[in-house]
Amino acid sequence: MVKVPYRVIYGDTDCGGVVYYAHYLRLFEIGRTELLRQNGLTYRQIEREKGLILPVVESYVRYRSPARYDDVLEIEAKIVALHRFKVRFDYVIYREEKPIVYGFTVHAPINKEGRLVKFPDDVYHHLEGLLVSSDFENQ
Amino acid sequence: MVKVPYRVIYGDTDCGGVVYYAHYLRLFEIGRTELLRQNGLTYRQIEREKGLILPVVESYVRYRSPARYDDVLEIEAKIVALHRFKVRFDYVIYREEKPIVYGFTVHAPINKEGRLVKFPDDVYHHLEGLLVSSDFENQ
Amino acid sequence: MVKVPYRVIYGDTDCGGVVYYAHYLRLFEIGRTELLRQNGLTYRQIEREKGLILPVVESYVRYRSPARYDDVLEIEAKIVALHRFKVRFDYVIYREEKPIVYGFTVHAPINKEGRLVKFPDDVYHHLEGLLVSSDFENQ
Amino acid sequence: MVKVPYRVIYGDTDCGGVVYYAHYLRLFEIGRTELLRQNGLTYRQIEREKGLILPVVESYVRYRSPARYDDVLEIEAKIVALHRFKVRFDYVIYREEKPIVYGFTVHAPINKEGRLVKFPDDVYHHLEGLLVSSDFENQ
Repeated sequence: MVKVPYRVIYGDTDCGGVVYYAHYLRLFEIGRTELLRQNGLTYRQIEREKGLILPVVESYVRYRSPARYDDVLEIEAKIVALHRFKVRFDYVIYREEKPIVYGFTVHAPINKEGRLVKFPDDVYHHLEGLLVSSDFENQ
Repeated sequence: MVKVPYRVIYGDTDCGGVVYYAHYLRLFEIGRTELLRQNGLTYRQIEREKGLILPVVESYVRYRSPARYDDVLEIEAKIVALHRFKVRFDYVIYREEKPIVYGFTVHAPINKEGRLVKFPDDVYHHLEGLLVSSDFENQ
Repeated sequence: MVKVPYRVIYGDTDCGGVVYYAHYLRLFEIGRTELLRQNGLTYRQIEREKGLILPVVESYVRYRSPARYDDVLEIEAKIVALHRFKVRFDYVIYREEKPIVYGFTVHAPINKEGRLVKFPDDVYHHLEGLLVSSDFENQ
Repeated sequence: MVKVPYRVIYGDTDCGGVVYYAHYLRLFEIGRTELLRQNGLTYRQIEREKGLILPVVESYVRYRSPARYDDVLEIEAKIVALHRFKVRFDYVIYREEKPIVYGFTVHAPINKEGRLVKFPDDVYHHLEGLLVSSDFENQ
């Protein structure tokens, strides 16, 4: 699990005065990227050294409370499910310790030829080491 | 139901060579906005004349096949569920008649003071007239 | 010269209630892409058939009046300068016939190896056919 | 002057493999916001306590070398010109100490009624304390 700070800019907001709903998916990307980096295998390494990309096959966001300009948020990301052909990340966005947005993304490993492949053993075991349980269903 | 054409620009894509996953939520917004407009009650009118905003409380996207630069897409939007306190839109993005992305958003009516309110009768009945069944669960 | 209609969505705006200043560069992209397409040589063809990309080396925007949610804009784009190693596009964004934003971009031809190259003769002559004078300096 | 670190995400890039040209204006916003914050008068305070907004009236970007996915950039921002009715910020984006992008934005003070106004004395003198010379013309 990782928590990454993020400060909201004008460019993240919309004329409703709050963060535009699509932009939370940018925050999720920041979260999962830092989770991988801080655990010693970056997404860039997965691409370059392992020859895999991990396109998103599903995304979900539950918006409980809006974030606003200049808010300091915390992006929590964790891996909550891992299979040979997919991995799921869960996210919580906090403002002042209070969760305001939940979400998840599911990614499938694809090789350079664009074919769905199994995670190689070393990548699988690395990700397995990051696996924690989801508390998403109960929220 | 409505179908809106959209041509992908560089600004929609990412370095994976495909449309960035967050940007489909922009396309969904275009779809639901045009659905409302073409049926005679625009989102702007709902805001200004009815004093309501309709923030997104949930969004979901299933990415089946990637869209690429200069692709001409069609955005299909429809209302598939309506309750006193929420409305759900379903979306399908097509490329050359083939569905490549599915999704939905759920919106809750909020008044100017930021309070969750029931849809006023006239808005409710208008939206009810647009209600069709979802074929999303079966896909 | 070309004029392309564009309707502002929530995703284009910021919490100041107007279109976010960076997003006009997206509109400029739409304008220059359509200018090329409507004149028979698309940007995609320049990339694929001519083996060139045209990265932006300079951009400028003058913001005279803000665009807002649901505004219908018109994006005017034209080629106003052409040299062996660069091309300049000028843009005007109109709302109800009134110019609200001006700008330009300068692009340099790069080959597949990332090297600055001269425009090939056929591309050069094609672009030359689109060349009109700029009225930007006087505005 | 301030330098703010920024790591490029997928969402910043385009299918050319580099940061999309509009997104540098987001980085510029991050830079000027942090410049103001670190000097004790945030943009939010200017809005709320001083009743001013500072819309962008001009922006310029010179793209010398592209930034790519996962690059760690540094955003330098400074105030280089100040008048009663406008302020100019200059920006340099660095990667590994090397400048890759330059730019500037010009902002005009507007009051709550949308009228161009002079900077109040206290804001003017505060910004004056941040004023440094531009080295932009010579680059």
